[in-house]
Amino acid sequence: MNWNNPFTKLLEIKYPFVQAPMLGVTTPGMVAAISNNDGLGSLPVGGLSAEKTIELIRKTKALTNKPFAVNLFANEYETPNSDEVTAMEKFLQDFSKVNGLPYQKESVENYSFHSYRELIGILLNEDVDAVSFTFGILDDESITALKEKKITLIGTSTSVEEALLLDEKGIDIIVAQGIEAGGHRGTFLTSEPLPKIGVMDLVPQVVKQVLKPVLAAGGISDGRTIKAAFMSGAQGVQIGTAFITSDESAAVSSYKSAILNASETDTVLTKSITGRWARGIKNKLITEIENAGIAIPAYPVQMHLTTPLRSYAMHHDNPDFISLWAGQSSGQAVMKPAAVIFNDLVKQAEDLS
Amino acid sequence: MNWNNPFTKLLEIKYPFVQAPMLGVTTPGMVAAISNNDGLGSLPVGGLSAEKTIELIRKTKALTNKPFAVNLFANEYETPNSDEVTAMEKFLQDFSKVNGLPYQKESVENYSFHSYRELIGILLNEDVDAVSFTFGILDDESITALKEKKITLIGTSTSVEEALLLDEKGIDIIVAQGIEAGGHRGTFLTSEPLPKIGVMDLVPQVVKQVLKPVLAAGGISDGRTIKAAFMSGAQGVQIGTAFITSDESAAVSSYKSAILNASETDTVLTKSITGRWARGIKNKLITEIENAGIAIPAYPVQMHLTTPLRSYAMHHDNPDFISLWAGQSSGQAVMKPAAVIFNDLVKQAEDLS
Repeated sequence: MNWNNPFTKLLEIKYPFVQAPMLGVTTPGMVAAISNNDGLGSLPVGGLSAEKTIELIRKTKALTNKPFAVNLFANEYETPNSDEVTAMEKFLQDFSKVNGLPYQKESVENYSFHSYRELIGILLNEDVDAVSFTFGILDDESITALKEKKITLIGTSTSVEEALLLDEKGIDIIVAQGIEAGGHRGTFLTSEPLPKIGVMDLVPQVVKQVLKPVLAAGGISDGRTIKAAFMSGAQGVQIGTAFITSDESAAVSSYKSAILNASETDTVLTKSITGRWARGIKNKLITEIENAGIAIPAYPVQMHLTTPLRSYAMHHDNPDFISLWAGQSSGQAVMKPAAVIFNDLVKQAEDLS
Repeated sequence: MNWNNPFTKLLEIKYPFVQAPMLGVTTPGMVAAISNNDGLGSLPVGGLSAEKTIELIRKTKALTNKPFAVNLFANEYETPNSDEVTAMEKFLQDFSKVNGLPYQKESVENYSFHSYRELIGILLNEDVDAVSFTFGILDDESITALKEKKITLIGTSTSVEEALLLDEKGIDIIVAQGIEAGGHRGTFLTSEPLPKIGVMDLVPQVVKQVLKPVLAAGGISDGRTIKAAFMSGAQGVQIGTAFITSDESAAVSSYKSAILNASETDTVLTKSITGRWARGIKNKLITEIENAGIAIPAYPVQMHLTTPLRSYAMHHDNPDFISLWAGQSSGQAVMKPAAVIFNDLVKQAEDLS
């Protein structure tokens, strides 16, 4: 199969397969494994500090000379409603107590969510090949600065309207994230009601309206689904869940087990964990926050509020109280080195040609 | 492109393209147009009387000698909660009054929903080629009787578990209905929470587990999506929304306009109109019943309760108070004869080969 197309040309990569950025799961080792095997790894740095971002980029560069993308969160802050924050904190404290978990409350001032604007200068200095982003669109100044450095820009859309806006802003490559995808929705125009478009409907409709290469995200788990995505008009695919169980993944063991054992009906869309819509395997944390019936503070505040619980649970490898982000094809995952998973996907797709 | 496969062989049809059964929209003329052009038309008779069923089958047979499927609702009745029914009736009466519509209440005894069991004898007598069904699985006795007459059976699944059950019961062909699909969900095992699996995830997972031919339903709107469905493992596709705007459709003019003008984000999943989960374009009827915050009686009771309103609105071509069932690719539809729409889909798919 000839994988040459405007997307692979733009990035000078062989395979139009992107490893999805998964904050808390993706490591420099995972990114490098994909890029070294001629796909495009994605290093997530959304919300991280400048120092941490530099460290991660350099770690990744130490492991690969090939192109990879650095992924930003392009959202703007929403001022949290302090009554809602107080109520949620109280709930989480009680909830932690009942479940025998410590809850070390952080003060709002200590929340360490950094705007992508703090990172643009670093990306320019560190000479990265591509910058991908989600939750919004970078501001015009950042877009201009990155484009002047010939950095390829990859934006995320969940509706035709969002894709058209990315196109209009001159973004080079447009990810169409179907509702099957695991983790956070990239939605940034209207999130209530959330667009819930299947990748099979979204990709062809976006392809019809934009001239830029479109990458299909969501539902891609094997050679067949890769080929189907290309058939539906995509010039590339973005794959996340399949790499959560890779050796290079930072996911704790119980998270990996949950992925391997999940059926296609086990994931839900929820705002409960971070305040933004995301797809994950339903566990006690999601169920109890949703059942509490109290308002969920906006992202990233809710994310910070659940962090103490999730950090403790992660440390103790307890899947009941962590975020088990996962797509609808989780059960198809395998535990192998990322390079083996990646090359097997390539081979499956090529064997179908 | 060679369309020969176990599915087309079984039905002795040329193109593995099924026109989805759409009660209230599909007419004998639509079914015949598809079958005469070597696809498989589907005649919906779910809930209809024996007399009406015979009439529709004979009308269709007068228009085509080719195979078509007759579609049944395989659900069991749920006893309605009479307090819920009373409350909903009261709400709908008030709602009708406020909106200047008459509401001629039917007594529950007059509800004319017929069990599929009343129709099996007719299907055996009328020498139909195929029987498709949704909302459940036909009882063993019906399956045996239909199979003895060499009638091909086509069941509907919305999860791997449902597909496995259909397979186990010896159903010949299995539809995998992705969440993109318009109209009622075929879900019959666990409907709360409703499985919401994208067709791109559902088809390959079902294909991996059953040996029977699998048809992809949901999201199929053009040559690309047809090819993508086959690539993902399907041996056929079922297409509904594309035919709502056909000349042979019974949809009123304002319903057709709503389909043509819908964007991919305009449909919602709702139980408000019939008591069963279904996807349609959001209108006043859905919004106000959902906002009422009262319990929705189970299907088919809620369907009967909203019928007076919907019949009146349909008669007056008022899209605010009818069911605008539609899939997520509604905006791709065109107003043409069903045969032209069908042949154009075939041509688009063949041109991509």
